[in-house]
Amino acid sequence: MMNDTLTCVAEYEDVFKSRLEAIEWLYYVSGSDEEITLRQNREALKRLRIKPRLLRDVSRCDLTTSLLGQPVDFPIGIAPTAFHAVAHPDAEVATAKAAEKMRTCMILSTHANKSMEEVNEHAKTGLKWLNVYLFRNRTVTLDMVRRAENSQYKGLVFTIDNPTLGNLTRVYKDKESVLFATKVTDKHGYGHCAKYVKGYDMVPTEEDVLPADFNKRDQSATWEYVDWLRSQTNLPIIVKGVLTAEDATLAVNHGANAVIVSNHGGRALDSVPASIEALPEIARAIGNKVEVYFDGGIRNGIDVFKALALGARAVFVGRPILYGLAHSGEEGAKNILEILKTELHRTMAFTGCSSLSDIKPSLVVHESHYAKL
Amino acid sequence: MMNDTLTCVAEYEDVFKSRLEAIEWLYYVSGSDEEITLRQNREALKRLRIKPRLLRDVSRCDLTTSLLGQPVDFPIGIAPTAFHAVAHPDAEVATAKAAEKMRTCMILSTHANKSMEEVNEHAKTGLKWLNVYLFRNRTVTLDMVRRAENSQYKGLVFTIDNPTLGNLTRVYKDKESVLFATKVTDKHGYGHCAKYVKGYDMVPTEEDVLPADFNKRDQSATWEYVDWLRSQTNLPIIVKGVLTAEDATLAVNHGANAVIVSNHGGRALDSVPASIEALPEIARAIGNKVEVYFDGGIRNGIDVFKALALGARAVFVGRPILYGLAHSGEEGAKNILEILKTELHRTMAFTGCSSLSDIKPSLVVHESHYAKL
Amino acid sequence: MMNDTLTCVAEYEDVFKSRLEAIEWLYYVSGSDEEITLRQNREALKRLRIKPRLLRDVSRCDLTTSLLGQPVDFPIGIAPTAFHAVAHPDAEVATAKAAEKMRTCMILSTHANKSMEEVNEHAKTGLKWLNVYLFRNRTVTLDMVRRAENSQYKGLVFTIDNPTLGNLTRVYKDKESVLFATKVTDKHGYGHCAKYVKGYDMVPTEEDVLPADFNKRDQSATWEYVDWLRSQTNLPIIVKGVLTAEDATLAVNHGANAVIVSNHGGRALDSVPASIEALPEIARAIGNKVEVYFDGGIRNGIDVFKALALGARAVFVGRPILYGLAHSGEEGAKNILEILKTELHRTMAFTGCSSLSDIKPSLVVHESHYAKL
Amino acid sequence: MMNDTLTCVAEYEDVFKSRLEAIEWLYYVSGSDEEITLRQNREALKRLRIKPRLLRDVSRCDLTTSLLGQPVDFPIGIAPTAFHAVAHPDAEVATAKAAEKMRTCMILSTHANKSMEEVNEHAKTGLKWLNVYLFRNRTVTLDMVRRAENSQYKGLVFTIDNPTLGNLTRVYKDKESVLFATKVTDKHGYGHCAKYVKGYDMVPTEEDVLPADFNKRDQSATWEYVDWLRSQTNLPIIVKGVLTAEDATLAVNHGANAVIVSNHGGRALDSVPASIEALPEIARAIGNKVEVYFDGGIRNGIDVFKALALGARAVFVGRPILYGLAHSGEEGAKNILEILKTELHRTMAFTGCSSLSDIKPSLVVHESHYAKL
Repeated sequence: MMNDTLTCVAEYEDVFKSRLEAIEWLYYVSGSDEEITLRQNREALKRLRIKPRLLRDVSRCDLTTSLLGQPVDFPIGIAPTAFHAVAHPDAEVATAKAAEKMRTCMILSTHANKSMEEVNEHAKTGLKWLNVYLFRNRTVTLDMVRRAENSQYKGLVFTIDNPTLGNLTRVYKDKESVLFATKVTDKHGYGHCAKYVKGYDMVPTEEDVLPADFNKRDQSATWEYVDWLRSQTNLPIIVKGVLTAEDATLAVNHGANAVIVSNHGGRALDSVPASIEALPEIARAIGNKVEVYFDGGIRNGIDVFKALALGARAVFVGRPILYGLAHSGEEGAKNILEILKTELHRTMAFTGCSSLSDIKPSLVVHESHYAKL
Repeated sequence: MMNDTLTCVAEYEDVFKSRLEAIEWLYYVSGSDEEITLRQNREALKRLRIKPRLLRDVSRCDLTTSLLGQPVDFPIGIAPTAFHAVAHPDAEVATAKAAEKMRTCMILSTHANKSMEEVNEHAKTGLKWLNVYLFRNRTVTLDMVRRAENSQYKGLVFTIDNPTLGNLTRVYKDKESVLFATKVTDKHGYGHCAKYVKGYDMVPTEEDVLPADFNKRDQSATWEYVDWLRSQTNLPIIVKGVLTAEDATLAVNHGANAVIVSNHGGRALDSVPASIEALPEIARAIGNKVEVYFDGGIRNGIDVFKALALGARAVFVGRPILYGLAHSGEEGAKNILEILKTELHRTMAFTGCSSLSDIKPSLVVHESHYAKL
Repeated sequence: MMNDTLTCVAEYEDVFKSRLEAIEWLYYVSGSDEEITLRQNREALKRLRIKPRLLRDVSRCDLTTSLLGQPVDFPIGIAPTAFHAVAHPDAEVATAKAAEKMRTCMILSTHANKSMEEVNEHAKTGLKWLNVYLFRNRTVTLDMVRRAENSQYKGLVFTIDNPTLGNLTRVYKDKESVLFATKVTDKHGYGHCAKYVKGYDMVPTEEDVLPADFNKRDQSATWEYVDWLRSQTNLPIIVKGVLTAEDATLAVNHGANAVIVSNHGGRALDSVPASIEALPEIARAIGNKVEVYFDGGIRNGIDVFKALALGARAVFVGRPILYGLAHSGEEGAKNILEILKTELHRTMAFTGCSSLSDIKPSLVVHESHYAKL
Repeated sequence: MMNDTLTCVAEYEDVFKSRLEAIEWLYYVSGSDEEITLRQNREALKRLRIKPRLLRDVSRCDLTTSLLGQPVDFPIGIAPTAFHAVAHPDAEVATAKAAEKMRTCMILSTHANKSMEEVNEHAKTGLKWLNVYLFRNRTVTLDMVRRAENSQYKGLVFTIDNPTLGNLTRVYKDKESVLFATKVTDKHGYGHCAKYVKGYDMVPTEEDVLPADFNKRDQSATWEYVDWLRSQTNLPIIVKGVLTAEDATLAVNHGANAVIVSNHGGRALDSVPASIEALPEIARAIGNKVEVYFDGGIRNGIDVFKALALGARAVFVGRPILYGLAHSGEEGAKNILEILKTELHRTMAFTGCSSLSDIKPSLVVHESHYAKL
């Protein structure tokens, strides 16, 4: 079955459950608390209707675009998710090679099983961004930034929606103490995150040698942290986790080059809006100043189209990539991207859009639009 | 059981599943992608409420009307669907005879198992329209038009919502490659569509001799294609697949004699509006200029009434006819039409409408109308 | 179990199924077509919220009122339903005695298993109205009116929402021809309605001697029929089946003394509004001119309260009475009324209403009221 | 399993069912009538979305506040619920000790298995309020007030939404007569409430010596009762059970020091609004004059946050405390409070709120807010 070609993300999702141990599977598919936001990420996308325009020349649909000046073949990148070794032994190296071959962008997680240098070594020409958290010890942050600069990473994705860990209730109910163990020690150099435990912080495995405060988030961080980061590097800064127009505007004012509208896959605070619900107000507030990206609930190319119509320049997908990895490593991750690209292409053909700029807000309406006869 | 008289479409639908092979059944009942539009075609109809008017003389309800000048006994025709031989060996001949006997209109599919000439031979007095796609090779289109003219077809239904094939996920998941095989080779003369495969185009069976580009859709087509078709024939052109007021207006401006509001039975692009949701804006935009028809989700005469109230001059039904065919051929298809006609009649009696012109927009409201106390 | 005291209508409903034969049970619980209206009768009531007022003296709640000048102990009467002999051998006599003992109003159905004279004989002091249909043969109508006048019936309930029979799909699917047989021949004198068959009209049993056109509805009837009836009798005329402000106004203009907002228990045309949805516009239109009553979906006293708040002077209940009859005849029907009365009393106590006139529209809001924070 | 640490209220709820006898469990989890309000208490909370603000210093979140001048560590107190002995032999003493240790407020029920003096004896430093009903015999009321004054109770919670008993249908269906028996005789001195029976009043056990009219509610009570209570004591009066702005304003005008927005846990009148639905209009009407509290449906700290954002100064939780008690007595009740506190803390960290005053109305919107694109 390893070489089966599956036809949609939902099929990979079904397979995913059978490839992982229960606790691993649960870790990836869960959302926080009652999982309202996790579900709404999908449901809110489904509530949108596409108004197709017909008889426009769609014989050549151009899906290419650029992310902060870097060309990509289509506007679907890979969101940062933790511990790809759980899904496949090649871990983030497989993921990066898939992105490179598909000519799109990969965001490498802070919590990776392969070091950023090793990832770069195997996917030199691929567009890569590094995900960085609000580390309490700014030496850690700075060290990661310098290494990213030295390893051809073209952007820093600064995740700001996680001052504390999300409350993954379903995971914590399954086992009360040790929840998750990566199969391969992290190789960013800090050996962090070998185990997940209930509560606020992560605990290293005994074999790891860690700075005492590594991986502690800085709960006192304010936008000054972004100012500081801005002053330390020329790499573009992409602020991730914004859900309001107000914070999006602040991000721009503090030097962000782009913003990712995201609720952390429903894993940070439950009850926050679905990403697609938050997108329009953010696109209106800052869309003419910086690039706006999107993640949260994308499972097919129709979803991608909706996010683009509501103001996203590109979307990023998280869990589906893990589904692909678990199925067949690099090949599986590549196929997920291929499927989403094909589906977006098809959606464009069906709606008369021959380029991404044709995907205008007027093509998408909320289902309640049709309550007026 | 073959001669049982069933009392509603839903009963025929239940029987349908038992008469076909699983993959055949799946092919007909599926919608594209997540089947949101397929479901909404039904659900949106159910969300409408009828405000009945009482104590009007309904002893004689007149259901007759005309379609582009041709008289029909009631405003319910047969939508084009592919490969009727799957449902019954008499295929489209049975369907056409049922329509003829009920004195209504049948639209013959491009993907028929009986040639348009053979269909005409068996149902000479019936009102028949031919469905034509946007063939890349206009010689194919023109040949079909000429043959339609020569075989008493009174209209060309030009389906424009299918620049590419819909993504019938449930079908493709069932079998990954060959999905569907017609039981009888198509007889329009081109032997097309013998097999359905995953992806954009259809593949002929080996025994077929096909023009190299037959059945390729012209993805570069614009409204110029309609202009061209208009210039080639005096047959009325009915543009099918419109879901927005803008495209409806363009259709009229490019010479369409009528428009069918349709989302291809939820099989083209998923997430587009339910047909009944799209109808009102289209009826308002062009209803005073050309005839507006409707398909999508009709399963009983109450649904028909709702579509007529919101601006349709007539509706067309697709899958229910296949249910009838599979049950008992011509007789079954005829009974489906009879049931729908009776149900429409009953709905008119219950609402004080003695003619179709009495079925006014004010008789139908959206359920949200009643949220105001 | 026959003497068990059950505590709410829902419990009686559960028992009901076990007391009847399947086809009988189905006949009573079904609605027409897809049963949208049947379900909405309940759901729309549940969507209403009551805003309780506190600390008002509710030590003495007065539930008494009058119906067209006749006093009743509480504003809950018995709606006309067919063939009570199916539920209990004492049939409508048991029902009438229950109403008499509870000092409320019973509407006797046209399709009764006991003649109006026999019913009157057993419940002389009870307030009784007779339900009359739009008979094609006005001699039949007139004969019923005269007999009603002679037997102490105080009102004629003129049901106008049934120019044809409702399409009880679930019943017709179960058995295609003979659907229902009463256990006791009707005694109004015409022996009508002994069997129900699919289609427009009812068929007499062979033993019955029927006028040729008895029980045929007059599908040509207009408001002139009401004028005629008005001219033939001094009994109050209560027009039943109205769902729009327009028809309610016409009813008043044509001499109706009261109107019952009703959709025939979801058994006439499916897809019409829930009764409670239609009530407010009707109460606004004619509530200051004639009495407005309500039936449709009442299953507890909270429902009654909601209907009264939205403008009904009284409500009538149909199926719940049959549940009570089937359980224990007169005693069961009486207990149903007792339960509903107690529940209405309790609701009044909880909302600060010591008389029915305290049940004002401001005490009830639609759930969507609370979408505004 | 008694010493397991559970991680959320839902886990305790699951355990609760296994610790009690069926009829006991049913008594606590049921709501009145169709349980619409019981369900909506939860559902309406889930329909609210939180708009998080990021990059604010949340390293020190201050959850402390005061209730009528008395300091508490966090804004979550214990609502009055009946008969804690059913959940644990230590009954209200365990509950009071849990509240004292967590430094929050406990409201002792009128229907307690431990006398208010005994409760005070074991939790002298804890903030305690006494719940009082509208007793018909004001001597009873006054006696309870005096004893409360003498036992360090700092407030009188005056429940006004219960002029009659709620109709706990599920309970009454289970057993028709004797429904519930406390395991330990009540010790407030009146021995009341030893058994619950169907209907309006409670019946004492034979061993109890009761004033004849003890525990009878005064259904004739008006706001004059509050005036009288106000004149009899200097203790703060907290009026509980208000669901409208009108009654909230009356409460203030009649001397209430605070109001608890509550629908009695869905156990008084069914169909009234969810507590969270009623909160905003009440907070707007009186929030600048007196303290507004909230109960109804709180199951996690995110719910608490929503209630605070919409105007509550603090919330009270009922059933969850019983879940904790049934699990492990004082320790369990304490853990419930600990969990909710931690979850509120986490929610504040995720939304940029370092103090309770940061939890502003603008941080919470109704889900329908996002129907506008």
